[in-house]
Amino acid sequence: MASKNVIRAFQDLLGRENVYTEAADRHAYSFDSAVLDPVVPELVLQPTDTESLAGAVRLCNENELPLTVRGAGTNLSGGTLPAREKGVVLLTNSLNRVLEINTEDLYARGEPGVITAQFARAVAEKGLFYPPDPGSQTVSTLGGNVAENAGGLRGLKYGVTKDYVLGLDFFDVDGELIKTGARTVKCATGLNLAQLMVGSEGTLGVFKEIVLKLVPPPAAQQAMLAVFDSVDRASETVSAIIANKILPCTLEFLDNFTIRAVESFRGAGLPTEAGALLLIEVDGHPAQVEEDARKVREICQEMGVTELKVSQSAQEKESVWQARRDALPALARLKPTTVLEDATVPRSKLPAMVRAINDIANRHNLTIGTFGHAGDGNLHPTILTDKRDSEEFERVERAIEEIFDTALELDGTLSGEHGIGMAKSKFMEKEATRGTILYSRRLKQALDPKGILNPGKIMGA
Amino acid sequence: MASKNVIRAFQDLLGRENVYTEAADRHAYSFDSAVLDPVVPELVLQPTDTESLAGAVRLCNENELPLTVRGAGTNLSGGTLPAREKGVVLLTNSLNRVLEINTEDLYARGEPGVITAQFARAVAEKGLFYPPDPGSQTVSTLGGNVAENAGGLRGLKYGVTKDYVLGLDFFDVDGELIKTGARTVKCATGLNLAQLMVGSEGTLGVFKEIVLKLVPPPAAQQAMLAVFDSVDRASETVSAIIANKILPCTLEFLDNFTIRAVESFRGAGLPTEAGALLLIEVDGHPAQVEEDARKVREICQEMGVTELKVSQSAQEKESVWQARRDALPALARLKPTTVLEDATVPRSKLPAMVRAINDIANRHNLTIGTFGHAGDGNLHPTILTDKRDSEEFERVERAIEEIFDTALELDGTLSGEHGIGMAKSKFMEKEATRGTILYSRRLKQALDPKGILNPGKIMGA
Repeated sequence: MASKNVIRAFQDLLGRENVYTEAADRHAYSFDSAVLDPVVPELVLQPTDTESLAGAVRLCNENELPLTVRGAGTNLSGGTLPAREKGVVLLTNSLNRVLEINTEDLYARGEPGVITAQFARAVAEKGLFYPPDPGSQTVSTLGGNVAENAGGLRGLKYGVTKDYVLGLDFFDVDGELIKTGARTVKCATGLNLAQLMVGSEGTLGVFKEIVLKLVPPPAAQQAMLAVFDSVDRASETVSAIIANKILPCTLEFLDNFTIRAVESFRGAGLPTEAGALLLIEVDGHPAQVEEDARKVREICQEMGVTELKVSQSAQEKESVWQARRDALPALARLKPTTVLEDATVPRSKLPAMVRAINDIANRHNLTIGTFGHAGDGNLHPTILTDKRDSEEFERVERAIEEIFDTALELDGTLSGEHGIGMAKSKFMEKEATRGTILYSRRLKQALDPKGILNPGKIMGA
Repeated sequence: MASKNVIRAFQDLLGRENVYTEAADRHAYSFDSAVLDPVVPELVLQPTDTESLAGAVRLCNENELPLTVRGAGTNLSGGTLPAREKGVVLLTNSLNRVLEINTEDLYARGEPGVITAQFARAVAEKGLFYPPDPGSQTVSTLGGNVAENAGGLRGLKYGVTKDYVLGLDFFDVDGELIKTGARTVKCATGLNLAQLMVGSEGTLGVFKEIVLKLVPPPAAQQAMLAVFDSVDRASETVSAIIANKILPCTLEFLDNFTIRAVESFRGAGLPTEAGALLLIEVDGHPAQVEEDARKVREICQEMGVTELKVSQSAQEKESVWQARRDALPALARLKPTTVLEDATVPRSKLPAMVRAINDIANRHNLTIGTFGHAGDGNLHPTILTDKRDSEEFERVERAIEEIFDTALELDGTLSGEHGIGMAKSKFMEKEATRGTILYSRRLKQALDPKGILNPGKIMGA
């Protein structure tokens, strides 16, 4: 436990009301959205300005208190769990100002605690577009999105968080300010530290201010729901769409198990007998949209779609998209424990990946619902289980490992958008070389000699 | 000088014919395209496969020989100059295989010595598009482009090299293989080392293989030449186009001095009385192109364009684009020394930046021709001088520093696309904090303890 003197120093710096020491308060920050054992922090800090944020980081380092920055705690790989001993959680929710939305130069600046969806809405009100839309966007924060390189439904056409980070101001472990990147699309000044920080899971610095690229919004959209009698046909249709050089802004997949779970959750009239559904949206200039939508319809027909429903209104589209957003909560309520994975493969390998996931589920006698961002090969096989059933959970762990092995055999990657955190750290060497892990650790050691910045995450086992 | 034993070890590793020790050979690699004093390397190595590349790096490190990797030597900031003592230049021109162009999954893999334009052409032959097009693309290499985060004419709409690097395999200073990134758009596995390497100017590792994102090509283009009687009107037109949410793929600027230089260079019929020219190209779906081109024409008219020429054929467009490509050689032949800068500002600050450059030229009684990528605020003020005239060159140096100061006052950056190298290292602290420089150096020290990877570059003075 931090000494009374240290706690008093935090109270002097942040104000008494922003230093939480009571068990009830601390327990609220002992878990994130990953399936891992909770770890109760010893201290929770809530700085209200970036100057005291820097001071808090410095105090942690001086007192060798391991520091985990937390936005909304929606992390799916345990990146937000504090250290087991002397763990401090630093909340960013009071650092939530949008500092600038520059409509002439197409960028915005914000503090790390700004909520993603609120930011996107503020940008939209100014007539511009911030594309990254992670599933947790209604509560997730920009800082968390950058720290995890969050993805979302629009990755295929618009890229992910890293593609929008132009610049970053952050504090090093001594609370010194580091400025990197710029407000311009072009910047070749100094090391690309801004992009090193993207996806670094809080292990290399603490964000002060983020500069994000904005783009003009598309003038038109069209959404479709395509029903297939088999998973194979649906996933082969995804590959065919991309191979025809159409880049839908969204191209989502739901398997039969997920469809039925969603339907019993909300009763939106989904075809429960379907092998798989694709939700497809194209956007851009109206003429482009019309042409792409026509080609997508033709490809679906060629691939043997059994039903194709084009949304005639924003409301109709919304009800289809709601079905996709319901996938995770609908699956999650079926069993006590939901393990949501995000292994990712090149798009053309999607049919093979989907088949492999089903094989793995059968072989280990497990329930896996699969949905996700089919267009960029980023599936979310979701294993429904009960962690208290240790025999079953062992099979779950074997299945997870086989899913990773398959993704890598198919030239894919361990994590598309959820990060490595604590959950996948031990698997890093399956994908990277030993040299990669050692290189990352040398870098980490140099920038955080006492190892206080979110220890135990990302660096491999 | 490297000892005979060391030279023999390199010869055994690479073959006698790939180890250059003769003065005549070494002199050829003593300079790049920056205005800096030449430095003759003591040894030049030309590995022909990536295994011996790793071995060469390891041998350099073991023998504490500072190593500078060189592609085509088109670097404009001295990034390719070897170290003053015991400098080894490592040529990548025999590592020039395009390993894969994957049309289903929209990526390509190549070795560092692949020539940019040849790569782009091979991609185009497969029906895809690799947008980054640095001015030196006919000779520059992919490895050099990544090491410098090269830009080009299409940055405004399509981004720069960093936006296309999906993955990277590189050797650390011990010759160990580091694998980072993936072949997928989404990847959240491990530290984002691929992007740390982008723009790192050869200071953190030696590239083995680069994975680049490809995109479907635009279906249509339209190019225009717009003539203005003043620089102000031209630069304000640029701002107006962007503010109207049009993103041309190219939006280039030439001032009167540059126009006259180009005209006397080739006699292409440019309006030599014009205050400034804009070259504008929009691309995308044909309907989008038509609409954007119409809006651009309207904006040009509103801003008082004196002549607007729409290219009616590929040939006509080519002759206009040739004029832009002639800008640098046309200016360069006017005086013995050409100092080409690339300070960059947010687009809306372009008019202020152009005015400031002209003020600086007048105040220091210097000849500065300005052209460049106006659409992304990335101008190339080009100072024509004679380095042997030390009195004038002192004025040049003062002017350069004032150009940097102005760019930073306007929320810009020291370098948009040429890098920091040796030329701008001493100016780093104008833009970054001292903390940023120290952070970068700690990182470098950890990854390259003997300081042999391209010493003296990027890290600040």
